[in-house]
Amino acid sequence: MNSTTQLFDELDPAPRLLMGPGPVDVYPRVLRAMSTPMLGQFDPQFTGYMNEVMALYRQVFRTENHWALLVNGTARAGIEACLASLIAPGDKVLVPIFGRFGHLLTEIAARFGAEVITLETEWGGVFEADRIADAVRTHTPSLVALVHGDTSTTMAQPLDEIGRICRAAGVLLYVDATATLGGNPLEVDAWHIDAVSAGLQKCLSGPPGSAPVTFNERVVERISSRKHIEAGIRPEGYTAGPGPRIASNYFDLPMLMDYWSPARLNHHTEATTMLYAARECARIVLAEGLEHGFARHRLASRALRAGLEAMGLELFGDAAHRMANVTGVVIPAGVAGDKARGELLEDFGIEIGTSFGPLHGKIWRLGTMGHVCRKANILRCLSALDAVLRRNGFEAPVNAGVDAAYAIYDGEG
Amino acid sequence: MNSTTQLFDELDPAPRLLMGPGPVDVYPRVLRAMSTPMLGQFDPQFTGYMNEVMALYRQVFRTENHWALLVNGTARAGIEACLASLIAPGDKVLVPIFGRFGHLLTEIAARFGAEVITLETEWGGVFEADRIADAVRTHTPSLVALVHGDTSTTMAQPLDEIGRICRAAGVLLYVDATATLGGNPLEVDAWHIDAVSAGLQKCLSGPPGSAPVTFNERVVERISSRKHIEAGIRPEGYTAGPGPRIASNYFDLPMLMDYWSPARLNHHTEATTMLYAARECARIVLAEGLEHGFARHRLASRALRAGLEAMGLELFGDAAHRMANVTGVVIPAGVAGDKARGELLEDFGIEIGTSFGPLHGKIWRLGTMGHVCRKANILRCLSALDAVLRRNGFEAPVNAGVDAAYAIYDGEG
Repeated sequence: MNSTTQLFDELDPAPRLLMGPGPVDVYPRVLRAMSTPMLGQFDPQFTGYMNEVMALYRQVFRTENHWALLVNGTARAGIEACLASLIAPGDKVLVPIFGRFGHLLTEIAARFGAEVITLETEWGGVFEADRIADAVRTHTPSLVALVHGDTSTTMAQPLDEIGRICRAAGVLLYVDATATLGGNPLEVDAWHIDAVSAGLQKCLSGPPGSAPVTFNERVVERISSRKHIEAGIRPEGYTAGPGPRIASNYFDLPMLMDYWSPARLNHHTEATTMLYAARECARIVLAEGLEHGFARHRLASRALRAGLEAMGLELFGDAAHRMANVTGVVIPAGVAGDKARGELLEDFGIEIGTSFGPLHGKIWRLGTMGHVCRKANILRCLSALDAVLRRNGFEAPVNAGVDAAYAIYDGEG
Repeated sequence: MNSTTQLFDELDPAPRLLMGPGPVDVYPRVLRAMSTPMLGQFDPQFTGYMNEVMALYRQVFRTENHWALLVNGTARAGIEACLASLIAPGDKVLVPIFGRFGHLLTEIAARFGAEVITLETEWGGVFEADRIADAVRTHTPSLVALVHGDTSTTMAQPLDEIGRICRAAGVLLYVDATATLGGNPLEVDAWHIDAVSAGLQKCLSGPPGSAPVTFNERVVERISSRKHIEAGIRPEGYTAGPGPRIASNYFDLPMLMDYWSPARLNHHTEATTMLYAARECARIVLAEGLEHGFARHRLASRALRAGLEAMGLELFGDAAHRMANVTGVVIPAGVAGDKARGELLEDFGIEIGTSFGPLHGKIWRLGTMGHVCRKANILRCLSALDAVLRRNGFEAPVNAGVDAAYAIYDGEG
C-alpha cells in the first residue's frame, strides 16, 4: 500500500428508515442471502437456482409464461431489454404518459428508432381505457408501452381493459411494473399483458440492481426473427434470423433466452449475488402470499393517509387510483419542503421522497413498501413528521396523525 | 400462501473453490459489506460513498481522470456503455481480435452502427504494435477498441505502444480490462488509454454485476456533444447537444456523469449493494497494494504452471504474453475433458473452466484470481487434478505437480 493511497473507512452508515419511493429497507433474509458464496455460472447448482428463479417469478407475475428471467441491471435495464427487443426502427409505439416514467418509455423507445405516439394526461390522474382504445384504432401501433404504477405521481393505471383492447387489436402490450409488483395486484395473464418488467427495490424489498421480466409467446414470435448470436460463440452452420438486429447486445432478449435455457449459451456472467437476492425476495413475498401482501400494503397506506389527513394535510392525486405503496402529500404552505425533509432524514433518520417535474417542491412522496410496510413504521413516520412540521411552523392537532393511524389498525377507520 | 405455491429451499449450495476464468470466490469482507442495509440514492451518506468509489477506482485504474464510476450491470454492460457513448452511426472502429472478447467488441460496435474494421490473429497470441499502427494509418478509424486480457485465450495484449500510436494519430483508444484489472499492471494514464471498462468478478474478487469504468477529457469532449437529458427531468430552458443521440438511455455516459456529479440528476437507481461490493473490492486491492497483488498473481501462476508442466501437461499460448491470472492447459490425449472437469467439480468441489470457439474441447482454463490466488489453492488444485487425471487414464509422475509448485513457493523455481 502506497503512502498516498486513500482507502476511506469501513461501510458503517447511520441507520435509516426508508419511507421514500424506493429503494426501501431490504428484508433481513435478503441481506443474509446475499452473503452466500459465489458459484460458477454453469455449475449445476447455479443453473438450478436460475431455473428456480424462473419458477418463482412466474408465480410473482401470475403467469404461465415460460419466460420469466432476470435482466442484470436496475429496473431501467429491464425496460430497455423489453423495448430494445420489441422495437425495430420505424415501428409505431403508443405511449400513454401519466407521469415521469411514461416520459422515460418515450425516451427509450425513440432511441431504438420507434415512431413514438404519445398521449398525455395531467399528473395525478390516469387514463380512461376508451382514450387508449381510440388511439390504438387511430394510430395502429405495433406496441403499446405503459407504466403500471408511476411513483412520480403515485398513481396506478388500471390495466385489465387495456390488455383486452390491445389483444383484440393485435397490438402487443408492454408494462413497466417496477413500482407495483408485489404490493399491488398484477395479473399478467388474466390482463393479457405480453411483456412486463420490474425491479427489486420497491414492494419486493430487495436491493436495486436486478430486473425481473416476463414475456409470452407472442413476444417470442416477434423477437425470434431478430435472433442474432454474437460472433465468437455461434454454433456451426448458424444463420441469423431475417429481422433487424436488436440494437443492444446486452439487452438482446433472444440471447438472454439462450442463456436461461438448457442451451446455456454464454452471454453475460449472471450477477450471482443479485440473483440470490431476487430469489429470496420472491420466496418471501410468495411465502407471505401475494394477496396477504397486497392487503398489508393497502392497510398501511390507509393508516398513513388517514393520519396525514387528520394532521390537516392534503393528499395528492386521484384517490380512486392511488398505488397501495406510495402516497403523495402536498407540502403545507409556508413550510420549506427540502428543509423539513432534511430534518426528518438527519434528525429522525427517516427518509421520505421529493418529487420531479411539475410536482417538484409541491409534494412529498411517502413509501410504505415491502419490509417497511408495517404499523410501527407508519406510527414512527407520522409522529416524526408531526414534530418536524411543528418546528417548521405547521401545527397539526395534537397527536391527531398517530391517533387516526391507530384507529385504522384497530379496525375503527 | 397458496397451497400450490412453490418456494424451494433456502440457499445452501455445496461449497466450491472457483478456479475457472471467473466468477471466483469473493473476499469475505466483500460478502460482509454486501449485508450493509440500504440507503436512499440521494442520502448524503450514499452520495458520499459514490464519491469515495470514484476516488478508489481512480487509484485502481491508476488515473487522474475525474470520471471513474460504476455502470450497473455485468462487465459486458461496462463495454456497452463505453461503446454506445463513443460510437455514432457510421463511425469507423478498428477492433484487433485475439480471442472471443474481441469478437464481442465487433458485435457491440456493429449494433451501434459502426463501420467495423477487424484485424485477427490466431488464438493464443497477441498483436505486434506495428500491425495495429499500420491499420490505424490505413483505415483512419475514430476509435480503436481492444481487449486487454482475453480469458478465452489467456493472453494479455501489451498496450503501452498501442496507446502512444492512437494518441499520436488522434484516435481514441477504448480497452476492455475486465479480465486483467487488479491482477495485472494496467496504467490507464501512462499508457494513454482514453476509456476503460472492467468488472468485479475476476482479480477484484467481487460478485459479477457492477462494471467500473473510467474515461478522460478526450472522451468527455467527444460524448458531450451527444448529451441528451431525458424528457421528464430536463431543467428549464434545456437544449440537447448537437451530436446524434446515444443509442441507449441506460448506457448513456453523459447521463451517468450527471448522476455521478453534484447535479445528481436522477437516472437509474444506483445498485446499492453492488456499489458496496465494488467499494470494498477496491479497498481490499488498494490496501494490499496493487504491485503486491500483481506479484501474488504472478507467483501463483508460476507455481501452477510449473506444477502442470511437471505433471507432463502442455500449457497453451504464447508464454511471453500470458495473463497472471488465467492459465490454459491442453487436455491430454485420451482424456474426456468435460468428464474429468465434472469430476473435479462434483467430487472435489473445484471448478475449472472449459473453452469457447476454436479451443472448445482442447484446453481447460484455470483461474488464480483475487481471494483464490494463494498457495493453498494452487496445491489443492494440482493434487486434485492429479487424482482426477489418474482416474481418467493419464498418469503424471507421482506428486510431481505439487512438488514443482512447492518449489516455486519455496523460492527454488
